[in-house]
Amino acid sequence: MTQITLDELNRMDRSAFVAALGEVFEHAPWVAETASGARPFANLNALYEAMTTAVRNAGHDRQMTLIKAHPDLAGKAAREGAITDDSKLEQSSAGLDRLSEDEFAAFHRLNDAYHAKFDIPFIVSVRRHGKDSIMRQFEQRLKNDGATERDAALGEIFRIVALRLALRVAAPDRLRVHGVLSTHVLDTHGGRPASGVAIEFLEIASSGTSRLILRTITNADGRTDRPLIANEPIPIAQYELRFNVGEYFARHGTPVTDPPFLGIIPIRFAVADPEAHYHVPIIVTPWSYSTYRGS
Amino acid sequence: MTQITLDELNRMDRSAFVAALGEVFEHAPWVAETASGARPFANLNALYEAMTTAVRNAGHDRQMTLIKAHPDLAGKAAREGAITDDSKLEQSSAGLDRLSEDEFAAFHRLNDAYHAKFDIPFIVSVRRHGKDSIMRQFEQRLKNDGATERDAALGEIFRIVALRLALRVAAPDRLRVHGVLSTHVLDTHGGRPASGVAIEFLEIASSGTSRLILRTITNADGRTDRPLIANEPIPIAQYELRFNVGEYFARHGTPVTDPPFLGIIPIRFAVADPEAHYHVPIIVTPWSYSTYRGS
Amino acid sequence: MTQITLDELNRMDRSAFVAALGEVFEHAPWVAETASGARPFANLNALYEAMTTAVRNAGHDRQMTLIKAHPDLAGKAAREGAITDDSKLEQSSAGLDRLSEDEFAAFHRLNDAYHAKFDIPFIVSVRRHGKDSIMRQFEQRLKNDGATERDAALGEIFRIVALRLALRVAAPDRLRVHGVLSTHVLDTHGGRPASGVAIEFLEIASSGTSRLILRTITNADGRTDRPLIANEPIPIAQYELRFNVGEYFARHGTPVTDPPFLGIIPIRFAVADPEAHYHVPIIVTPWSYSTYRGS
Amino acid sequence: MTQITLDELNRMDRSAFVAALGEVFEHAPWVAETASGARPFANLNALYEAMTTAVRNAGHDRQMTLIKAHPDLAGKAAREGAITDDSKLEQSSAGLDRLSEDEFAAFHRLNDAYHAKFDIPFIVSVRRHGKDSIMRQFEQRLKNDGATERDAALGEIFRIVALRLALRVAAPDRLRVHGVLSTHVLDTHGGRPASGVAIEFLEIASSGTSRLILRTITNADGRTDRPLIANEPIPIAQYELRFNVGEYFARHGTPVTDPPFLGIIPIRFAVADPEAHYHVPIIVTPWSYSTYRGS
Repeated sequence: MTQITLDELNRMDRSAFVAALGEVFEHAPWVAETASGARPFANLNALYEAMTTAVRNAGHDRQMTLIKAHPDLAGKAAREGAITDDSKLEQSSAGLDRLSEDEFAAFHRLNDAYHAKFDIPFIVSVRRHGKDSIMRQFEQRLKNDGATERDAALGEIFRIVALRLALRVAAPDRLRVHGVLSTHVLDTHGGRPASGVAIEFLEIASSGTSRLILRTITNADGRTDRPLIANEPIPIAQYELRFNVGEYFARHGTPVTDPPFLGIIPIRFAVADPEAHYHVPIIVTPWSYSTYRGS
Repeated sequence: MTQITLDELNRMDRSAFVAALGEVFEHAPWVAETASGARPFANLNALYEAMTTAVRNAGHDRQMTLIKAHPDLAGKAAREGAITDDSKLEQSSAGLDRLSEDEFAAFHRLNDAYHAKFDIPFIVSVRRHGKDSIMRQFEQRLKNDGATERDAALGEIFRIVALRLALRVAAPDRLRVHGVLSTHVLDTHGGRPASGVAIEFLEIASSGTSRLILRTITNADGRTDRPLIANEPIPIAQYELRFNVGEYFARHGTPVTDPPFLGIIPIRFAVADPEAHYHVPIIVTPWSYSTYRGS
Repeated sequence: MTQITLDELNRMDRSAFVAALGEVFEHAPWVAETASGARPFANLNALYEAMTTAVRNAGHDRQMTLIKAHPDLAGKAAREGAITDDSKLEQSSAGLDRLSEDEFAAFHRLNDAYHAKFDIPFIVSVRRHGKDSIMRQFEQRLKNDGATERDAALGEIFRIVALRLALRVAAPDRLRVHGVLSTHVLDTHGGRPASGVAIEFLEIASSGTSRLILRTITNADGRTDRPLIANEPIPIAQYELRFNVGEYFARHGTPVTDPPFLGIIPIRFAVADPEAHYHVPIIVTPWSYSTYRGS
Repeated sequence: MTQITLDELNRMDRSAFVAALGEVFEHAPWVAETASGARPFANLNALYEAMTTAVRNAGHDRQMTLIKAHPDLAGKAAREGAITDDSKLEQSSAGLDRLSEDEFAAFHRLNDAYHAKFDIPFIVSVRRHGKDSIMRQFEQRLKNDGATERDAALGEIFRIVALRLALRVAAPDRLRVHGVLSTHVLDTHGGRPASGVAIEFLEIASSGTSRLILRTITNADGRTDRPLIANEPIPIAQYELRFNVGEYFARHGTPVTDPPFLGIIPIRFAVADPEAHYHVPIIVTPWSYSTYRGS
């Protein structure tokens, strides 16, 4: 997506501004219109504040209309394409566009129960969640009362909007919407960063099935050239890093047994805070390793 | 199996002795007969030495006859039951009695190649190996020349015999045929052994499939009441211990995130020395862990 | 000290029993006399219970007389030898017989303040404390009221008595009066216990001065042949273990820098529970180490 | 020292250039004169190369004269001030200006032995060494033959010169003359960087005496605001970091014993490569810690 600068947004006329940001709030260009009057914005956080304040100050009816304008998760509208492009991309990011029939049925049931209780669609910032986490959210929020749940829906809409703004607008400051997941391999047998260690990074579903996210390799500094995840939220989910240290030590002629005590080291962990920095390194010898959540 | 004491073996007449130990060497009661003359034996190692010396001193032909008296691994004789009870149990321990058709075919091909090259059955002490390891042994030993391989076959027969003697004879000393695999969980968040941690212990095949060996739980000392493996060789294979520390810390009210950073910790390692002590503990907090091969 | 068996104590006449155990409570043979009537004792804990119960049931005056029969810590009586042999040995164990003039003066001041407030000598089971810890006890207990402090004094007397009984009487059971301090060195560079590592074990005073307790060396199992402390309480104090791993890795030809990154590794820790098991191992490579309180 | 830019050096006339850099080689302005002709220098490394090449290409006699122009370490000239300002600062950095009488005598003896054997002063880049390391250098180099030792002396002169150039000249590139020593404290009890941990950083002499280099404290990221050493070589020596984790955990209300198992954690290590990055962190709970050489 080509980004527009904050400066351009500040200088363009009202209708161009609304054209540029009108779809940031799903089917609710009036939010951009209201915020438009508060220009110029000193930074991206100010723009975000102006837009969310416009929603907070709108009456109950307008808020409900805004909420109801959102598509069901993995719903019929999504299947039939009647949602914004943003929504399409977001739902696909959590794998909601490739549910099994069983999972689709489960979502359907939860959607029905949710509609019956709250009369609004279930809204969640899907980029911040894996599939399991969305299910848990669904189940937990079904226990809320109506007022709590309306606030929860608005809160999720604001998270969605923050991500859309971060994607669309180039600005000197940043919204706190991105996490970082990084790793490092330190070889304390040789006393050096371990370079050339092959790494697989997977998401592990509660069902036990795993999905390969990426393959990479450590560089001379024992790190990966790019973080495993950056410039986006880290979906709340369970992950596994698999480090091929057996191959690494064999390549360096380190004396080991046959087969080596350590071959592939799996490190399984969960992310609970999508906007945080998770540093998950290993410190390894042919006979031992340790890991921790660093920062 | 009811054990016989070394003392009884020393005192019985020759024919009873041969009846008791004749099948220790597969279809070769003459070994027991020869060893019989060296009685009394001060200990089990002396008995083992006498029997293996009898084989070493027998001529080439008798050795070849002994070797050829062994059944093929996972072979037709095994399928049809025409092997000693010891052999049956041994082959079943490595899972050779429940091969897939593909695996059976692979064994068949290797057996044929081996027979064609050496004109003897492939002999290996299967209790010391997982299925993958037997395959690797097969492939490596196919590269030997005939004399080396005859020695290898005798060496494996001696290992088989040592295990059979250890099972059959009660003696004050022990043959070095058993390994120990143990674990421990230390909670350095609370500063105490972690009790009540559920553990799964699995064998992991190179194909990626896993086989649950046992489920257990740590006691007040952070250990398991019995070692994971003891009183037998630890088969050369890859294993995984899975420690449910997420549940443990939740039970103790330790503050963690939702989901917790660490839930199930998998520790994957391989055993290369079946007669050794492998101690594979974890030292754990809600945010870190380390493991090592202890002893 | 030659031990007397519980059995002998149970069978001897009353006066012999009192002769044997009369001095266990400092200058108070009446405690042994009272307990004598409760014989036979099934085990050592029962004997201990009978003696302490006799004191608990004695009236206030007898308790105060018992308390006042105790010598001052590092006091004039101790300097002049007018205390029981047990007391002499106990005071020497904490180094109270070799105080500097300043320390002697500090004890004197605290003793005076304590006498002035409570009109009893300050009693503490000195075998359970280093010099610093005794000072802290002194300062903390000076804040008590009279009744609390009388109970504290009796509690300490009971601890002293338990240790004296454990020393004097051979029985099938044990009083919980002993701690264990042990260590271990695991070399995860070589994948084996580190044998031949020279260890110094010191007590570190808050003043920064250190006192060498013992020198030892690890055996083939990476442990010391005997625990660093056993069969006595571990005095509440700060300690340091110094492991000469530089020399160890040099001896094994492990490649290191000159000078090696790790030479002497100091592990400083404090003991708070004299009757507990403190296991303080290191897991070490030429480039890393870790330690923890195990058990 | 006010820096001069490489650009200015490139543009000034020859005599100004020699005035600016003439003392970089001790009492040998001819080196700057020779190098002057090779201007302009693309970067600082090129200037350094030109100057050292000038020395390498000078004949044996000029090299010997250059070597002999250097003062003795801790010698009479130094005591009497007859050395360049650079030399004064350098000798003081290693503590050579505050030797005990015994140490002065030892240096004197080594100087005499060195002069007698090689007829040149002993030259070493003192900024790269602690006092112990200089002594070891002295002893090792006394074993060299004359040619080897002349090369060693020139090598040390070049190291001295590189440091002087780095100090004096502002350039876009850097000479590899600086090391970095950094630390980090990670609290895996709380799952966060440990902020507010007081740290003492000391040099530990082989005699056991220690010299406080600096006191600092960890910031919100668990690091120190500035590295412990940067922008200079890390002298080859033994160091100790002392982390006050007892106070840290007490401040956070973490439940610990009295006294806490861990109070001050001493990490003792040696630096062998003055131009390297040594990262020496601790990962700590109230019951455990680990450290390693990172990078």
